[in-house]
Order: sequence, then C-alpha cells, then structure tokens
Amino acid sequence: MRKKGYLITFEGIDGSGKTTQLKKAENFLRHRGHNIMVLREPGSTSLAEKIRKILLSKENNIPPESELLLYLAARADLVQKVIAPALNKGKIILCDRFYDSTTAYQGYGRRLDIALIKKMNRLAVGPAVPDLTFIIDVDFKTSLKRRKKESDRLESESKRFFEMVRRGFLTIGREEKRRICIIDGRGTADATFAEVLDCLKRKLKIV
Amino acid sequence: MRKKGYLITFEGIDGSGKTTQLKKAENFLRHRGHNIMVLREPGSTSLAEKIRKILLSKENNIPPESELLLYLAARADLVQKVIAPALNKGKIILCDRFYDSTTAYQGYGRRLDIALIKKMNRLAVGPAVPDLTFIIDVDFKTSLKRRKKESDRLESESKRFFEMVRRGFLTIGREEKRRICIIDGRGTADATFAEVLDCLKRKLKIV
Repeated sequence: MRKKGYLITFEGIDGSGKTTQLKKAENFLRHRGHNIMVLREPGSTSLAEKIRKILLSKENNIPPESELLLYLAARADLVQKVIAPALNKGKIILCDRFYDSTTAYQGYGRRLDIALIKKMNRLAVGPAVPDLTFIIDVDFKTSLKRRKKESDRLESESKRFFEMVRRGFLTIGREEKRRICIIDGRGTADATFAEVLDCLKRKLKIV
Repeated sequence: MRKKGYLITFEGIDGSGKTTQLKKAENFLRHRGHNIMVLREPGSTSLAEKIRKILLSKENNIPPESELLLYLAARADLVQKVIAPALNKGKIILCDRFYDSTTAYQGYGRRLDIALIKKMNRLAVGPAVPDLTFIIDVDFKTSLKRRKKESDRLESESKRFFEMVRRGFLTIGREEKRRICIIDGRGTADATFAEVLDCLKRKLKIV
C-alpha cells in the first residue's frame, strides 16, 4: 500500500482554461479508480475562505505586499489542515492554483522580490511541494475571450500586467522542467487535454 | 520645517506595561507640543482590523506560519496607508507593537526561521523602520499579575512560551542597541517611565 499521495497543481492566467483541464484530469483519474481530492486556491478551509473573501473584494485597495502575505497565509492553513493529511492517506490532490501563481502574480506581476517570495512559498507549504505542475499557457486575446463577464479584482488587470505574469509562469516552467509541464492552451479543451494526459503519463507512474 | 517624522515602537510581552508606557510617552510629548499619532498592532486600518479579528478569535486554530503571514499582511497595509503618509507629514507615531513582536513571538516563540522573518519584516514595512524602540521587560510572575482576566488567544500561552518570547525580545534588543532601549518594567509605572523618558531624551533630539 502506497503511503504518500501526489500533489498535482494547475497554474495559468485566468481564462487559460486551467480549471477545465483540472476537471478533465479529475474525471480521467477517477475513472481509473484513483482516490482524488480537488482543491481551489485561495480557499478550501474556514480560515482560507475568510482570507479569500478579503482578497477578492474590490473595496479594500490592498497593497501588493499584503496581497502576497494573505495568499501565503491561506495556503499555509490549507497545507496543514487538508493537503498534508490527504497526502499521508495516499490521495491524489488536484489543486487549482498553488505557489507558482504567487511567484508569477506577486513576483513577476507586482514586481516584489522573487527570491524572497520563493523562500516564503517554502515556509508556507513545508514539505508539500507539488509532484507535478501544469502551466496552461495562452496569449492575452485568447484569455480575454474565455473570461467570464463578471470579473473579480484580479481579472480586471491590464494587458501589460498579463504579459508580465505570463512571462513569469513561462520562466518558472523553464526553471523547473522536472516538475512542470508547460501546455499550449490555445486550442480546444480536448486538444489541450491530450497534451496534459501525455505529460501526466510521462511524469507520474500511477497513470 | 522638518519633513520626516519619527516612528517609536513599544514592545514587550502582554502584561509588561508597554501600553501604559506608551500612554505616558504620548501625554509627555503632546504636552511638549508635538504632533502625535498613536497606533496599535495589529489593526488601525480596515484591512488590518479584519485580520486582527481573525487572529484574536479562539476558534480558528491557526498554524504558526499563517499567524506570521497575517500579522505581516496587516502591518504592510498599516505602513502604506497610515504610517508612511504620517511620517511624511512630520508626525511622531507611537505604535503599540511592531515588527519586533513578530520576530519575538513567531520566530523565538513559535520557532519559525528567524532570518527569514527579518527579511519578511522588511518586505512588509519597506522604509518605515522604527527610529526608536522600547522593549519593556518583565518576568513571568509580574506579567501574570498585570494581565486582564479575560485573556485572548495569545495571552493564554504557557510559561515556557513566555520565556522563549522574552528571550527573543532581549536578544533583539542586544542586537540593535542603537535603535532599541531595553527597559526594566518590574517597578511602578512611574519608575519605569523615568527610564523610558531618559532613553527618549538620549536617543531623539526632539525631546
């Protein structure tokens, strides 16, 4: 019996299709009989949901430093209360956003200290480093088309910010090739999932 | 006309008498005609008060990493919205707790990475480093006598934790002698304030 599960994270800009790909991966893995847990970030614990509410409200005018720290606080709680226990039980966790989003948005997007953010990411997650990460990459136009009309605070950012965050994700993906698959997300959901599945089979022996 | 004000912080364990000393310093400085602003941490902005509420509730069972990150998130907001603008207007800010509490409680008390905490403190406050800090030092017995009966989550900690935090404050005080005055807080409020005043006059030319 395997003791340790797997943490698989789905990253990318809003409108990249990462949530759709996560759902497809979930269906695929459940069909294969795996014990799956799906999580979204920030959120999924009582503390993290309170923090999420603060982060996604439009009124707060939150400084970038506070934004960074709030995301990390929510994540630390999620890891300790949910992710670490589930991994110990051997579950496969699919997480919609994780610490690469923090590095991409707050580091590359908001221009905070990237090396420090990476250290803070490690403080927040401890040993719960993702086993596999998909970065679903799309261009600005594609992302705009896919975004829902009622955008929250994060989604109402400019093209310039989008490009900085996108560049961040691609840099992170190139720096950690063992862990991360960069997936071209411009095609149909099924075409993109074929790429995701290919990577999943190549990187994880369980599939 | 002086452009830059002063940030003076009052640190110490609950029951040390730091808040009493802050009030005495406030009265003294106001009497001398200075433009004073008093702040408490965590809190004093809309975002920080929301975070304070989460931190001081007993139900959340917050992991130490999240606790650390939430304090810092509140502080970053306070600095950007209140402290930095007030310093630019030349005010003297008296702050009840600031980043030395984070280092003492979360670093020395909760045993998180102290060097990383110091870097994170700097990320949160930017240029708003205190000009002068009082660490009001008392032993466990004295602090117990002075604490109010209805203790919040932080105040219901054990003697062991108290001693680690106290040692933390004293270490920080010894490391930064130019900025920090360690004050013996075991005597009467007036006796302690005589020491505070002595240090205030010695360190700040305005008094």
